[in-house]
Amino acid sequence: MRSIIDYRSDAVTLATFEMRQAMANAEVGDDFAGEDPTVKQLEAMSAQMFGKEAGLFVISATMANQIAIMTSTQPGDEVLVGEESHIFNMETGGLAALSGVQARPLRSSNGEFSLSDVQRAVRKGGLQSPITRVLCLENTYDLNLGLPLSQEYMSEISMLAHDHDVLVYLDGARIFNAATALKIEPEFLCRGIDVLQFSLCKGLSAPVGAILLGTKDFIAQARRVRQRIGGGVTKAGYMAAAGVVALQTMIDRIEEDHIHAKRLAFKLAEVDESLVNVEKTLTNIVQISLKNAGKDAVLLTAELEKQGIKIKTVDQTTCRLVTHWGITVSDVDKTSEAIKRILGR
Amino acid sequence: MRSIIDYRSDAVTLATFEMRQAMANAEVGDDFAGEDPTVKQLEAMSAQMFGKEAGLFVISATMANQIAIMTSTQPGDEVLVGEESHIFNMETGGLAALSGVQARPLRSSNGEFSLSDVQRAVRKGGLQSPITRVLCLENTYDLNLGLPLSQEYMSEISMLAHDHDVLVYLDGARIFNAATALKIEPEFLCRGIDVLQFSLCKGLSAPVGAILLGTKDFIAQARRVRQRIGGGVTKAGYMAAAGVVALQTMIDRIEEDHIHAKRLAFKLAEVDESLVNVEKTLTNIVQISLKNAGKDAVLLTAELEKQGIKIKTVDQTTCRLVTHWGITVSDVDKTSEAIKRILGR
Amino acid sequence: MRSIIDYRSDAVTLATFEMRQAMANAEVGDDFAGEDPTVKQLEAMSAQMFGKEAGLFVISATMANQIAIMTSTQPGDEVLVGEESHIFNMETGGLAALSGVQARPLRSSNGEFSLSDVQRAVRKGGLQSPITRVLCLENTYDLNLGLPLSQEYMSEISMLAHDHDVLVYLDGARIFNAATALKIEPEFLCRGIDVLQFSLCKGLSAPVGAILLGTKDFIAQARRVRQRIGGGVTKAGYMAAAGVVALQTMIDRIEEDHIHAKRLAFKLAEVDESLVNVEKTLTNIVQISLKNAGKDAVLLTAELEKQGIKIKTVDQTTCRLVTHWGITVSDVDKTSEAIKRILGR
Amino acid sequence: MRSIIDYRSDAVTLATFEMRQAMANAEVGDDFAGEDPTVKQLEAMSAQMFGKEAGLFVISATMANQIAIMTSTQPGDEVLVGEESHIFNMETGGLAALSGVQARPLRSSNGEFSLSDVQRAVRKGGLQSPITRVLCLENTYDLNLGLPLSQEYMSEISMLAHDHDVLVYLDGARIFNAATALKIEPEFLCRGIDVLQFSLCKGLSAPVGAILLGTKDFIAQARRVRQRIGGGVTKAGYMAAAGVVALQTMIDRIEEDHIHAKRLAFKLAEVDESLVNVEKTLTNIVQISLKNAGKDAVLLTAELEKQGIKIKTVDQTTCRLVTHWGITVSDVDKTSEAIKRILGR
Repeated sequence: MRSIIDYRSDAVTLATFEMRQAMANAEVGDDFAGEDPTVKQLEAMSAQMFGKEAGLFVISATMANQIAIMTSTQPGDEVLVGEESHIFNMETGGLAALSGVQARPLRSSNGEFSLSDVQRAVRKGGLQSPITRVLCLENTYDLNLGLPLSQEYMSEISMLAHDHDVLVYLDGARIFNAATALKIEPEFLCRGIDVLQFSLCKGLSAPVGAILLGTKDFIAQARRVRQRIGGGVTKAGYMAAAGVVALQTMIDRIEEDHIHAKRLAFKLAEVDESLVNVEKTLTNIVQISLKNAGKDAVLLTAELEKQGIKIKTVDQTTCRLVTHWGITVSDVDKTSEAIKRILGR
Repeated sequence: MRSIIDYRSDAVTLATFEMRQAMANAEVGDDFAGEDPTVKQLEAMSAQMFGKEAGLFVISATMANQIAIMTSTQPGDEVLVGEESHIFNMETGGLAALSGVQARPLRSSNGEFSLSDVQRAVRKGGLQSPITRVLCLENTYDLNLGLPLSQEYMSEISMLAHDHDVLVYLDGARIFNAATALKIEPEFLCRGIDVLQFSLCKGLSAPVGAILLGTKDFIAQARRVRQRIGGGVTKAGYMAAAGVVALQTMIDRIEEDHIHAKRLAFKLAEVDESLVNVEKTLTNIVQISLKNAGKDAVLLTAELEKQGIKIKTVDQTTCRLVTHWGITVSDVDKTSEAIKRILGR
Repeated sequence: MRSIIDYRSDAVTLATFEMRQAMANAEVGDDFAGEDPTVKQLEAMSAQMFGKEAGLFVISATMANQIAIMTSTQPGDEVLVGEESHIFNMETGGLAALSGVQARPLRSSNGEFSLSDVQRAVRKGGLQSPITRVLCLENTYDLNLGLPLSQEYMSEISMLAHDHDVLVYLDGARIFNAATALKIEPEFLCRGIDVLQFSLCKGLSAPVGAILLGTKDFIAQARRVRQRIGGGVTKAGYMAAAGVVALQTMIDRIEEDHIHAKRLAFKLAEVDESLVNVEKTLTNIVQISLKNAGKDAVLLTAELEKQGIKIKTVDQTTCRLVTHWGITVSDVDKTSEAIKRILGR
Repeated sequence: MRSIIDYRSDAVTLATFEMRQAMANAEVGDDFAGEDPTVKQLEAMSAQMFGKEAGLFVISATMANQIAIMTSTQPGDEVLVGEESHIFNMETGGLAALSGVQARPLRSSNGEFSLSDVQRAVRKGGLQSPITRVLCLENTYDLNLGLPLSQEYMSEISMLAHDHDVLVYLDGARIFNAATALKIEPEFLCRGIDVLQFSLCKGLSAPVGAILLGTKDFIAQARRVRQRIGGGVTKAGYMAAAGVVALQTMIDRIEEDHIHAKRLAFKLAEVDESLVNVEKTLTNIVQISLKNAGKDAVLLTAELEKQGIKIKTVDQTTCRLVTHWGITVSDVDKTSEAIKRILGR
């Protein structure tokens, strides 16, 4: 029995029994030759689910992000990104190192860039300016908040981008969290998006992987880029098999994670209203603010760890907790109790 | 002779008679072999003037900027830049395309980044973060404002950067304008700076060129980088010769450009106080705001052009005018008269 | 069950039952935080087996190669590679695209570069030359021949490289085939090598993966590079578990693949001596030459495929067949019979 | 009076009096805005001379080469280059560092690649291969030999490349030497070439510069790339003015350099037949082989230097001497005498 309650990320979730069995019994083939039936099944299921032409199985959401930009830009181009986005902050400088593109961070309010900021930021070239090629959205946005971006917003900003010949890319690592929170179909939510990825191994709990989606031509080029960085795997079907199970069995239960997150937020608000913004706890991420709590975030993290509860320190006064398949209601209750005790309430 | 009054940039200034003669009579040699006496003289003069170990003659300020970053970083590193900086906005995406580094733009107030913003922006690495390697300053800052950064500020922010093992680079294309406005020696102004460049062909009026300054080791590496991009020239002495004259004859007269800019600002303020911020006209750049003037910036630019006066449109309500060796007092007066007429005052 | 005999590559081998079970039952943890016990076990086992300080689990041999070069070079450096090497020919231009390094191909005789060629090729810099940073060996060499490089050769050429401050990198995707053919320990074979990788999913039959080995410092840097390209996986233990089994159970049986290859070569030589060089069939790769056989290689490939035997066409007169865990003695005999029939002997 | 006779390169030639005057009196304008009349004149003259649509003035032949490849490729592409080419050996690894392309060196016989080698080398892609985008020729080829490539060869190999959708680029730094040796018009010689550059400051003796030629679209893109690396210069006309003079006055006299080179070769052959291949001394480069002369190349270089004659050591038994505008008949005779004495003949 795992006695650790691990809220640090939904990426730590263990695979389900069914996924493990699927891996063990996977039918595989040579994916370089396009002959792995399980990979093909996973890519086709994914493409259909989002109404895109084609899909590409990759090992991680970061790899999907980097391949997407390498495929859609040339060195010296500019891409618009969120100031708090994963692609700008958490990918070891990959945009510049791998694609040679300049990331131009946009501020956001409640996860959204203002249309006029985007409008102003787009550059058409000229002798001295880089050319804006891609607008990168992330939904849910901000890995310390998990904000779901609405279909209306995604649609409106995509249209604006398209008006300027700017491709719209969505880092949808947690797109099923967004769709669940917004109670709409992923396909509808992502209709205006040109290229997107979603993760199989966060809320969906697969051992590994993400799917990149786009047009057939785009995916064909992306496949070569994946090969270049060593992301191609002859017998990828072993990994893909668990992904198929994830899509079949785990999407509907994401709502549970949101309920757990909300419950945790409520419980903490009962301890101290200033600790958490219950109304903004919309998906599976709970952010704790210790500004008025008289406790350093590092200390809270350390004291919880002693009790077998792992959370992530964001900065001196902020922690984040992410719910996932491995977090139960009783874990949530145990956690709020522990925090209450530590804060001396 | 020239009937055009060209305020678009101080880069358009013509070379002086003495510079032209120096070019024509230059003594040159094989600079690849370190044998060009004129280049060596110019590099040595420059290094001494700023109290740095060594100098490198390059063809443009942009080339100096790009070589500086290529020499001091590795792909995937991060460099801190000003949101309005030349290196971020006006160099065709070079930082990412050539160095593979991620530029992280900082906001500024009156040309200065807040120390706490810099502190927060510095990243030490970890698995997912890029590592901050360079802090890029620009003095004067903002090519539409020409703000001089004080010695105290430059010193303080450099110390902060050094505390975090971050190299401080100064884009000093217009450093002589800053030093003149601040009434201090360039060497003193740039004492805390590790690597810097200044332009020879803006306020100093040389036909071409900039000088990159740093330690001997740094410049030795930079020389190879310059060669790689084709910036090395066997007989660079012809161009360097004019640079020597620029350093010998043009620094002291930069004050004149500031006086002319101030005069222009005063004259325009007489026309309409809202047109210009006289107090912030500190170097050779005059920014005109048309917000309350009932005239579009593009229109003003067009109507002035008809009268032989070229200025630069920044955006719909903003124009900039740069004074330089080619702008006389009577040009200034003619210009303010023309603007007055066009605005119907 | 499987009626197809697939000689196209040893990368198509299926995982063993034990590996599949290991995947299904793997103990995993957060590898980003260095907490995945199975990954740690696999990396430690591998490092120990080769007498290197540290190891890094990656998804593919190509990824290991690319990370190795990204970690050990700077843009504009030169790396020496074999003219027939995988890293130069089969990695979609990755060396240049990802590391910005110039590959300088060396000719080989029987898999070996001449020492004097290497000596001549090393460049120390100067203003215009790239600097030679890495010598890339591959053992076994040439994916259409599988030539094992001797310990003496590897040692001698490594010493030469080290004398010139050139790092020695070994693409040892099939190093266990080499060690088996040479009847020596992998550790002894690779003693002079600075950095190397070996594949888990070729002769060793794991579903996925390769291990990069080097000093602790090198591997720490490589880990960041792996993250940048999206090769990091939170719960990599599922994949690593099969790798542990591969190291424990599959090394000793590689000899079988060599016996099968030799048997196939002998059988084909009986059909027609010119078809195959029995003496040079030293590992698990059999090369068929059709120069004197009056049959096009594409045709032979196609006709074999009709009979359920897949081989690879190298060029118009050359095919290659690779033996592996999925190829039995009776497959070999069936294959030689089939070829005999097709060639009309 | 220069007492030094400098054969190290034709890049060391001094500018003529007329060029110096042209620089001093140049009419210039803002080349960023396309307003520099002298630059426009030089670019137009050059384009017309070679029958290409448009031209771009750059500071050096290396810069022209690098911009050409940056403009015509994407990272991961492959370019075919000569094993002894300048672009592969003398540009500090720029192809990989700046364009991210893999250079694939081809062997040559008498300066020519065999058509079948080129045919075999072209790669169309597939998952693992880079795609061949550019074939790089150099005429005259080999900076230690100066071999002129014939119009027939250039035409034939260009057609082959075009059949495979491969762009043909010509490093024509010394194309006027080739055209002179072959006694044909540059335009005719380069008819099948897509993009080319020629140097202004080698045989043509200008202080600085090269011209890149291609289609209007290509040159428009190249202009942005030039800006990115800092190769754009507002008032480039000062430098371009000398280039105009070079084109007007120096092309016809290149034959003199060839006559001088031939004379030097004859004189040396009289000293010792094995020293030089008179028949292969076709342009302005004389290669001395000391294999049978009992003298080390470094020593010969050093002893000549003591007598005020500078030559270049290629390797232990080879030196090269380049004739140019600064070398007279009496220099040639003095040199052959000096070599005779040093070799003790």
